[in-house]
Amino acid sequence: MRKVLGIEYKGTRYFGWQKQKKIITVQGELEKALKKFLSKNKVETFGSGRTDTGVHASFQVVHFDTDIKRPKRSWIKGLNSLLPDDISVHSVFDTHDEFHSRFSAIDRSYRYIIYNSPFRKSLFADYFCWYPNSLLDEKKMQLCEKYLLGEKNFSSFRSSGCQSHSSTRKIKKFKVFRKDDYIYIDIKANSFLYNMVRNIVGSLCLVGEGKQSRYWFNDLIKKENRIYGGKKFPASGLHLVEIRYPKKFNIDIRRKLPTF
Amino acid sequence: MRKVLGIEYKGTRYFGWQKQKKIITVQGELEKALKKFLSKNKVETFGSGRTDTGVHASFQVVHFDTDIKRPKRSWIKGLNSLLPDDISVHSVFDTHDEFHSRFSAIDRSYRYIIYNSPFRKSLFADYFCWYPNSLLDEKKMQLCEKYLLGEKNFSSFRSSGCQSHSSTRKIKKFKVFRKDDYIYIDIKANSFLYNMVRNIVGSLCLVGEGKQSRYWFNDLIKKENRIYGGKKFPASGLHLVEIRYPKKFNIDIRRKLPTF
Repeated sequence: MRKVLGIEYKGTRYFGWQKQKKIITVQGELEKALKKFLSKNKVETFGSGRTDTGVHASFQVVHFDTDIKRPKRSWIKGLNSLLPDDISVHSVFDTHDEFHSRFSAIDRSYRYIIYNSPFRKSLFADYFCWYPNSLLDEKKMQLCEKYLLGEKNFSSFRSSGCQSHSSTRKIKKFKVFRKDDYIYIDIKANSFLYNMVRNIVGSLCLVGEGKQSRYWFNDLIKKENRIYGGKKFPASGLHLVEIRYPKKFNIDIRRKLPTF
Repeated sequence: MRKVLGIEYKGTRYFGWQKQKKIITVQGELEKALKKFLSKNKVETFGSGRTDTGVHASFQVVHFDTDIKRPKRSWIKGLNSLLPDDISVHSVFDTHDEFHSRFSAIDRSYRYIIYNSPFRKSLFADYFCWYPNSLLDEKKMQLCEKYLLGEKNFSSFRSSGCQSHSSTRKIKKFKVFRKDDYIYIDIKANSFLYNMVRNIVGSLCLVGEGKQSRYWFNDLIKKENRIYGGKKFPASGLHLVEIRYPKKFNIDIRRKLPTF
């Protein structure tokens, strides 16, 4: 039977999602907990995508196959009691065998959170990126929407080491807004290149700061070359917040977006 | 010259505010940073009140005397660069010599945050108390307002070890509200007894859970005896959020309340 878990994690302590030998990863911890929960029956898990070192997820989707039957509540409670404090399961579903957490996904959404103030903040500091340089104009940043939306070659925001064959991605939604000292950047795409959101945010902030214009941002995309863009922003501000699947799979998870 | 700092901290790592030998405290770290900032001139700091081990503050007020003059910005930036990641200064003021962060205070406000869901949460988990037992009825909890408000003997919510001479305190504001899975309890009083908020919340949740009535809560206050109340709630959910001073001191700090 194909089982689907909706999980969340604080990425700070982890070398990303993907399991690797000898280093601590979210998938590694999840598989350890599953093995205990399933009385030493090892299962192989598949995540919707890899989040990098330090990136958070309020919404990561994982599937695996198992014959073991337990009530939904006991899956969630049992796994949560075996997982570390900074990883938790919030949903569980049974689904069709043709479901794949990665390949069935329609699109993914990320939220990037910037704390935009000259003075360092200590509360909640693991969950945002601090940008003290100058006041960002979120309206200028929002004007880059029209250049980002649609199916394009996003090589300009692709970090070296990206294993994808193609640099073409389709950005479906791009929203920037401010709430007090926080700027939220929401991006939805069919999928993302390596470090794509963090690289977009880096260039976007040059526009928000007034150091570059939106026309520069448009040219940057067209150049299809990473070296002209702004720097990659830190992982602490990045949150994987949603993955959508076709309705037939009945994966209906609603999670509150992270805010402050 | 009397200097006032507005600071915030994530209390998780600290044995409370008050400096003590050989253990890590917020005041201890602040005085270390001040000593460095003031070129080894040691200063003695006075906080508005002691927060316990693990309690957070988005708003703690500290005063000390110094002859050293620096621009406001440099006080904040300089101290923040010397403080640990989980403590930061957000405001600085000069004030009259008769100002005392503790004795001049009109009242203090605390916010207690409960995550009320059967399933454990990993994101932001350092900043709330998880209450999985059952769904709390925040309206029932709010009905206890009329018993709490006013000047009363609050021995029923006073932990042993409290060093105060009197158990009489004046509660000026009490509000309970829910936002999704979170319950926020805001309490303002002239001052608080040892563990008073955490003990109130423990008894209040028995009412919210339907295990006790609001009349029981009223009787509990009248009994003036701690042994009849609910258990003390954990420090992780408690936030010191405001301290008010007479207008003449010009201590005007506005801080956003912690939410999710």
